[in-house]
Amino acid sequence: MKAKLISVGDEILIGQIINTNAAFLGERLYSAGIPVHKNVVIGDEEKILLEELSDSEMNYDVTIITGGLGPTHDDITKPVLVKFFNDRLVTDNKVLDHVRKIFSSKNIVMPVVNEGQALVPENSEVIWNENGTAPGILITKGRKIYVSLPGVPYEMKPMFDETVIPYLLKFFSGELNIVHLQKTLLTTGLGESSLNERIGNVYDIIGDSKLAFLPSSSGVRLRINAVGRDSSEAEKKISRIENKFREKIGEFIFGEGEIDLENVIGDILRQRKKTLSVAESCTGGRISSRIVSVAGSSDYYAGGVCSYSNEMKIKILGVKKETLDKSGAVSEETAVEMAEGVRKLTGTDYAVSTTGIAGPAGGSSLKPVGLVWIGYSDREKSHAHKFLFGSNREVNIQRSAQRALDILRRELLSISISY
Amino acid sequence: MKAKLISVGDEILIGQIINTNAAFLGERLYSAGIPVHKNVVIGDEEKILLEELSDSEMNYDVTIITGGLGPTHDDITKPVLVKFFNDRLVTDNKVLDHVRKIFSSKNIVMPVVNEGQALVPENSEVIWNENGTAPGILITKGRKIYVSLPGVPYEMKPMFDETVIPYLLKFFSGELNIVHLQKTLLTTGLGESSLNERIGNVYDIIGDSKLAFLPSSSGVRLRINAVGRDSSEAEKKISRIENKFREKIGEFIFGEGEIDLENVIGDILRQRKKTLSVAESCTGGRISSRIVSVAGSSDYYAGGVCSYSNEMKIKILGVKKETLDKSGAVSEETAVEMAEGVRKLTGTDYAVSTTGIAGPAGGSSLKPVGLVWIGYSDREKSHAHKFLFGSNREVNIQRSAQRALDILRRELLSISISY
Repeated sequence: MKAKLISVGDEILIGQIINTNAAFLGERLYSAGIPVHKNVVIGDEEKILLEELSDSEMNYDVTIITGGLGPTHDDITKPVLVKFFNDRLVTDNKVLDHVRKIFSSKNIVMPVVNEGQALVPENSEVIWNENGTAPGILITKGRKIYVSLPGVPYEMKPMFDETVIPYLLKFFSGELNIVHLQKTLLTTGLGESSLNERIGNVYDIIGDSKLAFLPSSSGVRLRINAVGRDSSEAEKKISRIENKFREKIGEFIFGEGEIDLENVIGDILRQRKKTLSVAESCTGGRISSRIVSVAGSSDYYAGGVCSYSNEMKIKILGVKKETLDKSGAVSEETAVEMAEGVRKLTGTDYAVSTTGIAGPAGGSSLKPVGLVWIGYSDREKSHAHKFLFGSNREVNIQRSAQRALDILRRELLSISISY
Repeated sequence: MKAKLISVGDEILIGQIINTNAAFLGERLYSAGIPVHKNVVIGDEEKILLEELSDSEMNYDVTIITGGLGPTHDDITKPVLVKFFNDRLVTDNKVLDHVRKIFSSKNIVMPVVNEGQALVPENSEVIWNENGTAPGILITKGRKIYVSLPGVPYEMKPMFDETVIPYLLKFFSGELNIVHLQKTLLTTGLGESSLNERIGNVYDIIGDSKLAFLPSSSGVRLRINAVGRDSSEAEKKISRIENKFREKIGEFIFGEGEIDLENVIGDILRQRKKTLSVAESCTGGRISSRIVSVAGSSDYYAGGVCSYSNEMKIKILGVKKETLDKSGAVSEETAVEMAEGVRKLTGTDYAVSTTGIAGPAGGSSLKPVGLVWIGYSDREKSHAHKFLFGSNREVNIQRSAQRALDILRRELLSISISY
């Protein structure tokens, strides 16, 4: 069972609009067992849309078209559908009333052009659009289905969830005998290739399932896709693969699905009724803002100090002037004194700190751009670890923040700090 | 002149990643006069990529492929390119050194699999990737150009701007006889419809040019697209439109192009040799991290305090206990004392502060979720302004941070603070 998306609109091609509809439809269709194999974005050109419809007819079971349904001259989807399927447009009076009501409710006289919105192909089913004036269209030809929806996300999404998905599941019920399941393991601390090396031969582990490495600034997500005749078969495959991964790279896996490291840490701290504070130099508040992005973080987060200047390190955090003179701001000693300083200042159970050279300028042969010391302090001990990240300022800040949170996670879970 | 984009990756098709690369490339190519006419997203399947390359060969002058260049098993782009063009892969030693350096600079032993990243088609030009290990590839066949770039945005974007665009403009210089220019005015403080209302009849102003309102959490971007037989004609159109907009909504326009408010403020402070500090409660470090995201911000930024707890407000910022008891943490008085407190603590010329209820919990009838007080202090005066944002925590944090920076901008430029 294969689906194809056709997104119509010049505004997408020239980058004025990001095609978020495709991501929404891709996820929904994948979960329904009708994965998208191709997604085409085209302009308001009749010729190209006709070509794509022919391609759909040959190669895909389901085709979802979004956009090009408006009332203006550059909206080509309906005329092209009629041409392709040799059909004709007829007025749907229920839709026409709906369009009229929408205008009258705004005390606007309906422009004549909008009467065209009630025109639909004679041999099609109307998909009701509660939130707009353009109806959706569903055309069935043999075992193939063609759906046309408006491009406005808040109109399109409910139409798809409430009408299209149920229709597809019913129509293909006999043939959707394969269940697609996926699970994403979130890792941090190792790059794509190093993870790959530790895992070993991927194919031996995944068998007929699929694995994707999805790198991001916060780490690498491992997405496992498994198929089965029923969900329990697919679940078995996924858990077998997951267990193998946890054997080999368990310490780097901080969670599953969509969560972030700050959520994982927050749950542990709240559960244990422990408190946290941070002292940031090179990350300049990035760690703090990530912690605070979690609702209810005030339960365990006291706050932080962004001691960007040496004066603040000394005056607020109590870093010793001698330390800064002797070892410099970017050093193990300073990182430790920053973490201890903010923890004592706030009276929290835990504290982390960062001090480094984010770049692009400020590096030297001894202390190059990308050098970062991350400090940690709790009521028993303090330490700092040295890292060398890249040359890109934003990436260095992201990686430093992520690594500081991961060092806290490892301490909370008694995992040794080795990368 | 027609361009086509091919985005490779299952993660895009099933909706795990939103295809922002396509928007970036679409805009850049449009501005270069090589508009994208088709954008295809396909999975990691050799057969489909080969089909798309044949389609490119027949119908498009420029084809940009993103993704599928990583070192792991699911990366198909290079093998398919070699197959399609009947070429072979050879090691580029300059790239191999670069890849080795990246690993050694992080004190990591390079996994063998990464040697493959230095393999490039013999008949191609390497596009240098400063921020990653996968080089880009540029292949010229007659009058057609094929470019393969990594999918990671912060690697791909500089490669495209610094190498690909200049190459395309040079290669096609004779044939680009219509100039597309665009300019983006960045506004903050007003919503789309309010801006629209102040501007009045857009069409009278823009004539045959195009205008797009692009709302985001930081404000509304106004993108003007103009076409001319030469750049001076297009430039004239744009500046005429820009002047009209500046007449009507000038105070809300904080910049042009891609910059952020923190860059604008940073330039002013550096130029005037003034210094800044921040005290954040509800924004929890968001303002500080935005300021620090600007390279060289240490020239004018002393640092900040994320006083999430009342204890920190009192202990570090010197907010009076009576103020907190009498007016509460979310109040005009507290906002002012926070701004004054951090400015005196750090001895800076300017300071801003935030205190509010980000939500989702913690609201009351008197102080609902979304209520935020933003404080300001300089050597002459201090004040605070009250805002009521939405119910979404992340949006409230973003808007509060943006508004605090805009209040500072307005003070620095002597613009009255009225929204």
